[in-house]
Amino acid sequence: MTLDDLTRTTGEWLRGAGPLSEVVVSSRVRLARNLADYPFLSTATAGERTEIYRSLADEIMAAAPSKQMLLIDVDKADAIDRQVLVERHLISRQHAAAEGSRGVTVSPTETSALMINEEDHLRIQTLRSGLQLEPLWQEMHEIDQALGKSLSFAFDRQFGYLTACPTNVGTGIRVSVMLHLPALKLTKEIERVARAAKDLRLAVRGLYGEGTDAVGDLYQISNQTTLGRSEEEIIETFGRNAIPNIVEYENVARDSMARHRPYQLDDKIWRAYGILSNARRISSEETQTLLSPIRMGIHVGRFKEFDIATLNEIFLHTQPAHLQKMHGNTLDDEQRGTVRADYLRRRLAR
Amino acid sequence: MTLDDLTRTTGEWLRGAGPLSEVVVSSRVRLARNLADYPFLSTATAGERTEIYRSLADEIMAAAPSKQMLLIDVDKADAIDRQVLVERHLISRQHAAAEGSRGVTVSPTETSALMINEEDHLRIQTLRSGLQLEPLWQEMHEIDQALGKSLSFAFDRQFGYLTACPTNVGTGIRVSVMLHLPALKLTKEIERVARAAKDLRLAVRGLYGEGTDAVGDLYQISNQTTLGRSEEEIIETFGRNAIPNIVEYENVARDSMARHRPYQLDDKIWRAYGILSNARRISSEETQTLLSPIRMGIHVGRFKEFDIATLNEIFLHTQPAHLQKMHGNTLDDEQRGTVRADYLRRRLAR
Repeated sequence: MTLDDLTRTTGEWLRGAGPLSEVVVSSRVRLARNLADYPFLSTATAGERTEIYRSLADEIMAAAPSKQMLLIDVDKADAIDRQVLVERHLISRQHAAAEGSRGVTVSPTETSALMINEEDHLRIQTLRSGLQLEPLWQEMHEIDQALGKSLSFAFDRQFGYLTACPTNVGTGIRVSVMLHLPALKLTKEIERVARAAKDLRLAVRGLYGEGTDAVGDLYQISNQTTLGRSEEEIIETFGRNAIPNIVEYENVARDSMARHRPYQLDDKIWRAYGILSNARRISSEETQTLLSPIRMGIHVGRFKEFDIATLNEIFLHTQPAHLQKMHGNTLDDEQRGTVRADYLRRRLAR
Repeated sequence: MTLDDLTRTTGEWLRGAGPLSEVVVSSRVRLARNLADYPFLSTATAGERTEIYRSLADEIMAAAPSKQMLLIDVDKADAIDRQVLVERHLISRQHAAAEGSRGVTVSPTETSALMINEEDHLRIQTLRSGLQLEPLWQEMHEIDQALGKSLSFAFDRQFGYLTACPTNVGTGIRVSVMLHLPALKLTKEIERVARAAKDLRLAVRGLYGEGTDAVGDLYQISNQTTLGRSEEEIIETFGRNAIPNIVEYENVARDSMARHRPYQLDDKIWRAYGILSNARRISSEETQTLLSPIRMGIHVGRFKEFDIATLNEIFLHTQPAHLQKMHGNTLDDEQRGTVRADYLRRRLAR
């Protein structure tokens, strides 16, 4: 499998299925690990960095249960390919923008993506649609165990796994979910939710992580500290309480809109559809903003032109790097606007 | 013919044809006359007012060349019917809102509309699509002559025809055209045009006359004084110079947009179409605003889904009174928004 093959599909996490998927687009679990025999990346030499990359890449590919596992040398990848990986949430923006030996391995359906030489030597990420933290944790744990057989990870009896950033020390686990909260946004209750999340020591961020905006009413919520708490505790608090509560709030707000202001809701959905299916030039941000009411419309049963998997495909393929990758050329901002509008009209033609 | 029959059609003036009709939606010529044997309306008693109404209505209907001439007693008409007449530009907003005996006679294709007891005893209006002042003047002159045979109009040797408002004294003629100036609006040159028009002693107003906004980029331009100038002079200055000059400016601005920013133009046109054909609730003002780029698009050959006559029909039928008249019920603001959106979707369905 190649990155080009990936580009044309959507990963499992954009399947639009899984528990509570009417609000939880996807969930992700991440583990940070560092090789005991090498210094943290902040002090590693370029040579050490390359050695770390090679040995981790070799081990991961060797331990992979599937022959379809994809290894991407991010350092050698061109800008569009790196951006494709960011848009698919397989690597962080920081990993794309960094320099030196680094990479990522991606499983065939993209349920796992292992970043090598991001902030830590290794970040094992598992990613699925809907709220399914246990299977994610299970998959991640198996990968961690398999790699742990041949690799020695930096571990401290008192602190647990050692990581580059103190907030990850301990279990090194970070859980995050991408939530679609259009009704809470519309009713302005989103701020109350954000405050409540902060009280629970959860971080609320935009679509592409730290410092990004919540375009398209999509929010990433994650735990902030890992020290002194077990994996089970973290997954329990997060997956059984915090997130289902927010989902419940959002669903109540949606029901209220559908019951009390159905025309207003339909109007919002259909105007968005009207613009997306007729524009001759449209930005990525506007596309995502307009897909938001349609996404909600599909889930509340008021929009039946296409399903959520199709919407997610459109959502992914209209982003700048995917658009250029599919078009086969580098495009400037203005050209992308036109090509994106053409793509949308083709996909949305009735 | 009844007012209900009228409602379902569009008058000649919305046919979208005639000279320079790519910019000049319609032109109108108006003559003010007062019966010599009665005082101006400002001092007339209710009884005199009724007498004026009856004698003028009788004379007009008797002199009418067509049996299809429609006489509407505006005082007895209900609010929606009065508003229908305003939306068709057959009576002024003032005439609709006034009290006491008053009315209007309308010719079958609405090329003439004679208001009785508006500001003056009689206002003869002729109305056609495009810029065709001579035929309008001719038709108006014939009506004036025919009525002058049996009626005695207030006339002064020095001043000419006497009118309620001094600005109409003299020939009593008022010429006005409705211009569609979206490109000059977009390029902000419209303000320069308005200043130039003022220098020529022309008045620039919105769609429904004095004190109204230029919704949908539609402007009414009219001469401001009639004293001391002949009909021919007024029509000459206005129809051969001032208006064709503005049309030329607008066409240059349109050409420049179509040549230098075709995608931007198409995008504006098609987004408007997308919203109009998908909204579930829409106001009259937004409808007119969105019809503007489509109107321009048809004329510059970039929009071919329907023709200008259809656009004008939609333009007329989506206005509040027409909408209610066709729907058969009085509707509140919110209901109108929904009914209007339903109508638009039916009409614009591909």
